Amino acid sequence: MTHELDIALVSDQIAMDYLQPAFRERFPKARLHRIDTEVQELDALDRIDTVVCWSPPPGLLARMPRLRLVQSVGAGTDHITRDPALPDVPVRRIVDPDMADGMNAYVAWAVVHGQRHMGAYLESQRRAAWEEAPIEPPGRHRVGIAGLGVLGQSAARALRAIGYRVRGWSRSPKGDLPEGIEAFHGDAARAEFLAGCDTLVCLLPLTDDTRGILDASLFAQLPRGARLVNAGRGAHLVQDDLLAALQSGQIASAVLDAFVEEPLPQGHPFWRHPRITVTPHIATRTRPEAIARQTHDNLARL
Amino acid sequence: MTHELDIALVSDQIAMDYLQPAFRERFPKARLHRIDTEVQELDALDRIDTVVCWSPPPGLLARMPRLRLVQSVGAGTDHITRDPALPDVPVRRIVDPDMADGMNAYVAWAVVHGQRHMGAYLESQRRAAWEEAPIEPPGRHRVGIAGLGVLGQSAARALRAIGYRVRGWSRSPKGDLPEGIEAFHGDAARAEFLAGCDTLVCLLPLTDDTRGILDASLFAQLPRGARLVNAGRGAHLVQDDLLAALQSGQIASAVLDAFVEEPLPQGHPFWRHPRITVTPHIATRTRPEAIARQTHDNLARL
Repeated sequence: MTHELDIALVSDQIAMDYLQPAFRERFPKARLHRIDTEVQELDALDRIDTVVCWSPPPGLLARMPRLRLVQSVGAGTDHITRDPALPDVPVRRIVDPDMADGMNAYVAWAVVHGQRHMGAYLESQRRAAWEEAPIEPPGRHRVGIAGLGVLGQSAARALRAIGYRVRGWSRSPKGDLPEGIEAFHGDAARAEFLAGCDTLVCLLPLTDDTRGILDASLFAQLPRGARLVNAGRGAHLVQDDLLAALQSGQIASAVLDAFVEEPLPQGHPFWRHPRITVTPHIATRTRPEAIARQTHDNLARL
Repeated sequence: MTHELDIALVSDQIAMDYLQPAFRERFPKARLHRIDTEVQELDALDRIDTVVCWSPPPGLLARMPRLRLVQSVGAGTDHITRDPALPDVPVRRIVDPDMADGMNAYVAWAVVHGQRHMGAYLESQRRAAWEEAPIEPPGRHRVGIAGLGVLGQSAARALRAIGYRVRGWSRSPKGDLPEGIEAFHGDAARAEFLAGCDTLVCLLPLTDDTRGILDASLFAQLPRGARLVNAGRGAHLVQDDLLAALQSGQIASAVLDAFVEEPLPQGHPFWRHPRITVTPHIATRTRPEAIARQTHDNLARL
């Protein structure tokens, strides 16, 4: 099964190089193609039978006549199915508990880091200063999760287990949410959701509807002094609006893992901002071996 | 009920001043006594009817003939019942979900901070450097909790919800542990427990048995490169042994919230150590209002 395959690694958002070693090992006889935003190897399109992708450019998959599997590298598939020209080919997600657990850990750290003033303690330590910040219990702090997919629901469960008051928002209603999570959905409930977020965690998928969603108008709907965690995509955030909201005090602090330009450029104001924590897109990742193995299994099942 | 009371705030470990305003408000007609390690107001001992305490000096309570309630300021009471001369008087704990939730948040932050290299990212940010550390999922990381009282069990549950592999150790067997927690107890199981702790979290009570328990011999039983979180008491830790274990690489990093001397003295080596995170004893705290109110209710029930 593994010979005569033409597998394309495709994304217009992330560098897919990190997948190559695992795919070379799992598919030793396959030809691997890398297709970036600027599609150059056009002549390969009619040979490709398998696409492994995150956010493929709309219209591209329709130009692959032999395509028989579209494999997402994540838990979500909306970055694929948003393509109006998507051909009628099986689309598969990665099922990877490690992915959700990694995000749980990141989100738990980021929420506590802001709510419990951990950054201030680390600064105090640099001055060998014993300085106590207010100790507010998690039960008085409302964390709102925007995006209730696999990752959002899992993070909600973890934050609830710590003791936070957790609410979640999604575009469409979700069944079977974790116990104790207050759920909101749709545009009509957005303002009510935001008004009760002492910390807002963005775990939304990136779509035309959510691009730039973290903007001045959204920040204005949060309680004054709210905290922001963006573990979604860089393009969710309007960068200048965040800087203005930090300046005005509407947002107290932000922990950001994703950026429009990665690596974040050296001179970018986020690096030096005293109330922004930058992490280099490490919140979570599905292991390349798991992606290669599940792609292999999905091909075998076809 | 609130007049003619003589309430003593007693501890040989922590300053009890922070309780005074709440007790003054809740018991406006009571006389409040503060009794430190060096007991000076000896003449008051025969008037005291209520002791509110953390780790009262052994033998002291036996010298209070009118004593009718011993109120712990925490969830534990072993710091009281270890007194061989403890008189036959009701001993009450504080039941405060905020206390456990606050500890959950601290422990979650501290465990992720070490395991996910968050300190390294914060250092990278200071240099505007995009530097990725290895991303290991929580499901491959074993967190061991020493001490399975109210706080230990709650922290175990929260870490489990994040996705860590959690094991716990207690001196005596505990019934009804949270699901998915591997339990060990007693001296015989100690080595086996420690051998499986990639991170060790100390939430033990401070007793003669546990004083200095975090020492070179314990560190040697952990996997090489293990991480330490001490959210117990400062006296659990043998400070020089930790410095040596960090030096040798046996311990990779430590997050410490409690110290033998607090505030931690300015010149103390922990402040400047690149792999020690110091927080000023803020992991959790029961709100003084809750302690005053529960003391009031416990007196009313007598």
